[in-house]
Amino acid sequence: MAEYDLVAFGETMIRLSTPLGQRLETSTTLDIGIGGAESNVAIALARLGRPVAWSSVLPRNPFGARIAAELRRHQVDDRQISWVDHGRVGVYYLDSGAPPRPTHVVYDRAASAIALCDPDAVDPSLATRARVLHLTGITPALSESCAEITRRFAACANKANVPLSFDVNYRALLWSPDEAAAALEPLCAAATILFCGRNDARTLWGIDGSNDEVLAELARRFGTETTVLTLGDEGALVRTPSGETLHQAAPAVQVVDKVGAGDAFAAGFLHGYLNGDIPRALRLGVALAALKMTIHGDLALISARELEAWSGITTHTVLR
Amino acid sequence: MAEYDLVAFGETMIRLSTPLGQRLETSTTLDIGIGGAESNVAIALARLGRPVAWSSVLPRNPFGARIAAELRRHQVDDRQISWVDHGRVGVYYLDSGAPPRPTHVVYDRAASAIALCDPDAVDPSLATRARVLHLTGITPALSESCAEITRRFAACANKANVPLSFDVNYRALLWSPDEAAAALEPLCAAATILFCGRNDARTLWGIDGSNDEVLAELARRFGTETTVLTLGDEGALVRTPSGETLHQAAPAVQVVDKVGAGDAFAAGFLHGYLNGDIPRALRLGVALAALKMTIHGDLALISARELEAWSGITTHTVLR
Amino acid sequence: MAEYDLVAFGETMIRLSTPLGQRLETSTTLDIGIGGAESNVAIALARLGRPVAWSSVLPRNPFGARIAAELRRHQVDDRQISWVDHGRVGVYYLDSGAPPRPTHVVYDRAASAIALCDPDAVDPSLATRARVLHLTGITPALSESCAEITRRFAACANKANVPLSFDVNYRALLWSPDEAAAALEPLCAAATILFCGRNDARTLWGIDGSNDEVLAELARRFGTETTVLTLGDEGALVRTPSGETLHQAAPAVQVVDKVGAGDAFAAGFLHGYLNGDIPRALRLGVALAALKMTIHGDLALISARELEAWSGITTHTVLR
Amino acid sequence: MAEYDLVAFGETMIRLSTPLGQRLETSTTLDIGIGGAESNVAIALARLGRPVAWSSVLPRNPFGARIAAELRRHQVDDRQISWVDHGRVGVYYLDSGAPPRPTHVVYDRAASAIALCDPDAVDPSLATRARVLHLTGITPALSESCAEITRRFAACANKANVPLSFDVNYRALLWSPDEAAAALEPLCAAATILFCGRNDARTLWGIDGSNDEVLAELARRFGTETTVLTLGDEGALVRTPSGETLHQAAPAVQVVDKVGAGDAFAAGFLHGYLNGDIPRALRLGVALAALKMTIHGDLALISARELEAWSGITTHTVLR
Amino acid sequence: MAEYDLVAFGETMIRLSTPLGQRLETSTTLDIGIGGAESNVAIALARLGRPVAWSSVLPRNPFGARIAAELRRHQVDDRQISWVDHGRVGVYYLDSGAPPRPTHVVYDRAASAIALCDPDAVDPSLATRARVLHLTGITPALSESCAEITRRFAACANKANVPLSFDVNYRALLWSPDEAAAALEPLCAAATILFCGRNDARTLWGIDGSNDEVLAELARRFGTETTVLTLGDEGALVRTPSGETLHQAAPAVQVVDKVGAGDAFAAGFLHGYLNGDIPRALRLGVALAALKMTIHGDLALISARELEAWSGITTHTVLR
Amino acid sequence: MAEYDLVAFGETMIRLSTPLGQRLETSTTLDIGIGGAESNVAIALARLGRPVAWSSVLPRNPFGARIAAELRRHQVDDRQISWVDHGRVGVYYLDSGAPPRPTHVVYDRAASAIALCDPDAVDPSLATRARVLHLTGITPALSESCAEITRRFAACANKANVPLSFDVNYRALLWSPDEAAAALEPLCAAATILFCGRNDARTLWGIDGSNDEVLAELARRFGTETTVLTLGDEGALVRTPSGETLHQAAPAVQVVDKVGAGDAFAAGFLHGYLNGDIPRALRLGVALAALKMTIHGDLALISARELEAWSGITTHTVLR
Repeated sequence: MAEYDLVAFGETMIRLSTPLGQRLETSTTLDIGIGGAESNVAIALARLGRPVAWSSVLPRNPFGARIAAELRRHQVDDRQISWVDHGRVGVYYLDSGAPPRPTHVVYDRAASAIALCDPDAVDPSLATRARVLHLTGITPALSESCAEITRRFAACANKANVPLSFDVNYRALLWSPDEAAAALEPLCAAATILFCGRNDARTLWGIDGSNDEVLAELARRFGTETTVLTLGDEGALVRTPSGETLHQAAPAVQVVDKVGAGDAFAAGFLHGYLNGDIPRALRLGVALAALKMTIHGDLALISARELEAWSGITTHTVLR
Repeated sequence: MAEYDLVAFGETMIRLSTPLGQRLETSTTLDIGIGGAESNVAIALARLGRPVAWSSVLPRNPFGARIAAELRRHQVDDRQISWVDHGRVGVYYLDSGAPPRPTHVVYDRAASAIALCDPDAVDPSLATRARVLHLTGITPALSESCAEITRRFAACANKANVPLSFDVNYRALLWSPDEAAAALEPLCAAATILFCGRNDARTLWGIDGSNDEVLAELARRFGTETTVLTLGDEGALVRTPSGETLHQAAPAVQVVDKVGAGDAFAAGFLHGYLNGDIPRALRLGVALAALKMTIHGDLALISARELEAWSGITTHTVLR
Repeated sequence: MAEYDLVAFGETMIRLSTPLGQRLETSTTLDIGIGGAESNVAIALARLGRPVAWSSVLPRNPFGARIAAELRRHQVDDRQISWVDHGRVGVYYLDSGAPPRPTHVVYDRAASAIALCDPDAVDPSLATRARVLHLTGITPALSESCAEITRRFAACANKANVPLSFDVNYRALLWSPDEAAAALEPLCAAATILFCGRNDARTLWGIDGSNDEVLAELARRFGTETTVLTLGDEGALVRTPSGETLHQAAPAVQVVDKVGAGDAFAAGFLHGYLNGDIPRALRLGVALAALKMTIHGDLALISARELEAWSGITTHTVLR
Repeated sequence: MAEYDLVAFGETMIRLSTPLGQRLETSTTLDIGIGGAESNVAIALARLGRPVAWSSVLPRNPFGARIAAELRRHQVDDRQISWVDHGRVGVYYLDSGAPPRPTHVVYDRAASAIALCDPDAVDPSLATRARVLHLTGITPALSESCAEITRRFAACANKANVPLSFDVNYRALLWSPDEAAAALEPLCAAATILFCGRNDARTLWGIDGSNDEVLAELARRFGTETTVLTLGDEGALVRTPSGETLHQAAPAVQVVDKVGAGDAFAAGFLHGYLNGDIPRALRLGVALAALKMTIHGDLALISARELEAWSGITTHTVLR
Repeated sequence: MAEYDLVAFGETMIRLSTPLGQRLETSTTLDIGIGGAESNVAIALARLGRPVAWSSVLPRNPFGARIAAELRRHQVDDRQISWVDHGRVGVYYLDSGAPPRPTHVVYDRAASAIALCDPDAVDPSLATRARVLHLTGITPALSESCAEITRRFAACANKANVPLSFDVNYRALLWSPDEAAAALEPLCAAATILFCGRNDARTLWGIDGSNDEVLAELARRFGTETTVLTLGDEGALVRTPSGETLHQAAPAVQVVDKVGAGDAFAAGFLHGYLNGDIPRALRLGVALAALKMTIHGDLALISARELEAWSGITTHTVLR
Repeated sequence: MAEYDLVAFGETMIRLSTPLGQRLETSTTLDIGIGGAESNVAIALARLGRPVAWSSVLPRNPFGARIAAELRRHQVDDRQISWVDHGRVGVYYLDSGAPPRPTHVVYDRAASAIALCDPDAVDPSLATRARVLHLTGITPALSESCAEITRRFAACANKANVPLSFDVNYRALLWSPDEAAAALEPLCAAATILFCGRNDARTLWGIDGSNDEVLAELARRFGTETTVLTLGDEGALVRTPSGETLHQAAPAVQVVDKVGAGDAFAAGFLHGYLNGDIPRALRLGVALAALKMTIHGDLALISARELEAWSGITTHTVLR
């Protein structure tokens, strides 16, 4: 039996965000936390009770220590991290918005330890110890060595028949659509579960049309067993291995912090998927994304009981 | 003429709540205040300008002192409190939610001074000095001695022809529906004004149907002169002594803190009731509940002028 | 060519506001900033990249210094301020509301340096160095000397063919409708661009009817070239010099702080107007008002790029 | 027997202070509280368990309400306040210092309700219901009507043989040394207990020399029964009715907030004095001043038990 | 070779503390963290890089989860915790002091899960997997079952020749000196390393005299191999196995938070002890206690490099 | 006559610091501000009322904008900044200490816009428009182009007979003592006023001995007209042009934030120097450094009046 329900590899950054209603130029304090697409998924699943490991590259400094400590705190196995003496931890700043003013993200992530690392410093065979390997389209954009590590993880998983969960996550600030489309195509094709946003499908591969058509075309193009199209406020669609298409609308949300909602969706979906129930996976993905948006920070700090009892009523605990 | 417009008896606790978007497990600060169904009503009415007294049992420690100080500050007469050397002040924690994530209440209220107190330590004849006695269905659930004191207060009021205002307020964490239904039945029957939520009517007595039907059945079952059915976001219904049914819808609210809204409703209703105007009572109850939800904490810190001028436009004061 | 795109004259005060959900009577901290109708417009335009000067009267104390420092920080020319040794800086307190509880404004602005100043201490010829002079109906209400300075500024602009932008801004706490109507009538008549809210049109001059009718009547009565009727959540209407009427609806907004939204509207409108495009002026006015409401404080801290790219999607910057 | 142990009359203001290390010009938040020499003494004594009343003049607005609420909360009888519709509440700002940078106090207290009030609006016979009347040299400086009320209080106490406790408290910003010396001389002469700082003795009456000599000269000049000379960090001296001079050194203090320490001294001294023990009064005065400096705000929130057990060791309470 | 350098067993509580200068009765926020004598030692040693496990009993609720998460975050093995469904997590409140006002500790720890637990629910053989077992005199005071578990741990360690480190830590609120002396005597006698404060030596066993005499008498009475007498601000004394006595003075400290300093001392001492160097152990204990007092909260968040380089100069790190 | 009293060139960074008692790894908020040795001097002098310009290289992003805005706010001329599209703003993190725990500085300043800039992008002739040019030994360490710009500034000043004020400021994290000694030697030799810390004198040039000897050797080695040796808590020494040596001890300080104290010293010294009074310059340097340490952040926000009246007593202002 596999040691981990999920293994992920990717970059995690320090996140510095303005309080609500403050601008980055004039705010006098910032909130500090961590965030990274893959570790967000890993933490969310660990909090749902699953054994999870996260692999990455971190420098030995207070920010590297902070990231590892945060993962441990939320029950993610941090022993697979490669520690190095070069490079820095990437930072991203959130100039927090409120509709109609968008949140503005400022990246300061160049020259990070993971972008600079030697691919041989990371052991991709970790993938073989999991029931699912999770990767995203951000990592190959960081550097050629990160792209190489991503490919090695996917190859290891493939050889060991470990399903690859792949979230496209196109980042326009890191590369062009053409570069991204070329690099991500083989990873999408290798994926057992593919997550893709509507905009990314159009930007990278020019796939357009109704939601159903976009989903069908994605499934056809990459031959993925399970294909998920995420629609933001409109919820998400899945095409099951049997070719069925399911839609789940999103609930009304009092948004506290949108960042990380897509990762929460993936985590909720994988939680259901790991139990072999794809219709439930879709519901849990939409639910976990909604619940995450009510929490400050990138992390979906939600227990399995909260996710399941998700019904809008007040819950109670007595301490004794 | 009565000394107080309202007298209430019940438990008040220390309230510790997470800031918006923080979870109880990870927040680094908590907001501290006080809350209790009966003192919430007492404070709201005192801030509306009415003479009010609150009876309870408090231990001599900084939290007992805090509760009494808060009542004095808001003009509630605190001289009727029984001070004891045993027991503690109950505490409740709010893991503050935002839709669709519910607020999670964690009680740590066992072994409180009031739950442990000797019924003879509290003088129920205070009820006879008021125009209305207000009790809730929480107090009898705390301990047999609290149930006994509640009964004594109701009996005193009854003998002196002081109307009893009773808010059912079923708390599933304190007792079962069967226990509650049995214990609360005589208090409902003794009430002149009965407040009951739709869910409580179904949970305790299996009363279901349209809002009108539920209200009618409550009124019939307990023979209450004035019966109020609260509907949350949908406002409230009252059945007047003359058998008329009135409904008041709730306004749109930007919710800051929902806890205490039901108590604010009762206070607003009683404010109108004490002036002998039940239709206005219903409007003021719905209005005060809405206004309370825009204020952090359990307390409805609203003046009579604000409640009356309640019209959505900005008001102004010049300091000189 | 004019030295400044806009010159404004008026009073700026210290602004002390409660955090969300706190009342002025019980809050333990207040947020401190500055605000004034005319400097709000000046700062907003300066942040959009325009050369702007603000004239006023300030006392030499930490609050006078604070106001001038804030203007400099946002690129408004502060060299036109008249510094005096008498008087104080006015203060206004915001008892911050949330629907349906209105924000309550408490003024403590009597005996301010500007209200007490000698009209000869301020040089109105500054108006001749601008492409637009901006005044509001608040200043004449402060004192007879302020009314005199306002008239002198308007006269200077008029002589030099500098268009006068005038925002009616009736303040019921400072004077009666009759006093205001009499004092503001000549300024409205002198205006090239007139901003007036629906309520002010009715309160001061009894103008009522459909939005179109009110706008037409304002334009007719004062013979203004460009007349703007502001409608709060419903957006705004403009009557162009050619007699055309345009309407712009307001977008949905997650309100953080409404105060200053009207000034942001005027600034956004003038930004378009200075480019000679009135339809775009209307759109930018409504947009800047909406964006300002998402920011804490009176000031519309929005760049030209943000205002133009205003489209609801997340924007990004990479630091290198 | 007297109804109150102490009655005081004076002005209380809103206090707005910067957090440690912030300047008034650039801080983004201020802490809000209340402060006034006489109410500080009243509150400190009430918290030590004594029945106390405070007389003053307050306007009906949120700041007047805040002041009365704070007094009630700390058990001071607020029923002797005269409420008026004119005037404002004075405000003082603290630009909080740290050695060697002094705390800078900015007053904005002109035109306050108390300064403008009609002397007949305040009933000085309240003095006759106390064991001690407490006044300070600040009140006569506020306005001629305040000076008149002060004289009436002193006269009432004198007639009823109620001892007058008088704290010189010279405020250079309110009047000149000559004006103050003239106005305060009769009040000092009427005092049974006189509190005077070393600097004030020199500034007002040119009294200089060793501490003993200054104290002796004060006692001689005003013929006071009990004379106290306060020395800041060096503690205080008292000359007892029997002509003995006692000195009490001050303990080492980690200063959180010095403002109000002098008032705490007076309160601690009066606490001992009311028990008829002047040596202990001196020790308690110095102790309460030291304890107050460890608390943020003007108020000495210290219980009798804490003051008495004042011994530097950690104390404990178990909640049950 | 042993799996852990240290194993500890004891109770950990939720810690709620007022900000500096605020009182428990009036503060509007509290800082929340965790604290417990044994977990403080465990966390401090884990942060110094040592493998450490902590055994305890926690209920399944958000506070139990918080405690375990905090331990994991700081690298303490949390897999030895016994999870139960009964009881609560104890809470202690700190009314934070500043000299000369002492910090006041309010316990609300009755009926905790650990106090109520069945001794058989905890496996004391964990002691045999460590190089040192650490216990304190608090645990036996909690309940008879806690006393029994403590004895079992000590017995296991003894059988396996694992040295017992025992910190007397007398808590006057939990039991009388006589009860404590009787219960702790066998544990002191079983200890290989004994930590005792001067006051505790006098209170429990009437041992008095010069520091050297007290230390010698403790060593004699209990026959401990390594005996440590802690002296607060005056540092500490150790009597080595060879009978030598060493003293280490404490450095000057800007105290941020004293709570937990004694536990930091024990951790620093054990860090040196585990390397077999008792003179260095004494220096590191005094140093870690001093460093801890500069950090908010119970925990000594200090790395081995910081502890060793402890020299008062500013250190630097470059991120790349 | 010169346009500016002082012109400075150097790098300014974003400063992110933990609140007192928090560690960088676990703090949940950071305070954000700006800091840079040369802009700290420029801002301090501008706040003392002197015309000052600061030259630097900043990228067009929210952090570049923040730095320029902060300089404008404090009256420093920001029109000499070169704006570029490449590079980033450097960041430094303060893990704020308290004795005996040192403040730990973490630099993340590589690849900053100024380090990467083309020397021709900066116009060194600005130096000729000032009465004093201020440079530090940090700038040449940033990159070869920064070293070149520094040399050009010094050469321009030299040609125009503008005195060069040079602060050695050795930064061990940026280069080795040997590299620094070689690069800084010509700048020290070119300086009219030289500031050097005791440790730097030893580290770079092996100068040791008594304070007098070190100062004399520095003056001799570089032939500087006015040489200043800074001694931290012990104050500073100056050797005047006439060869006299003066010492000024430092006052006792309640330290809020030490960072920037050395720059405040230089600014205070230059303030006196510009008035031609070197003994007073020394006193003002020590005083401004002490006052700065009581203020949070790098900046010495002190007015000329405060600096001159520096005497330890509370000062007051009345608003009217």
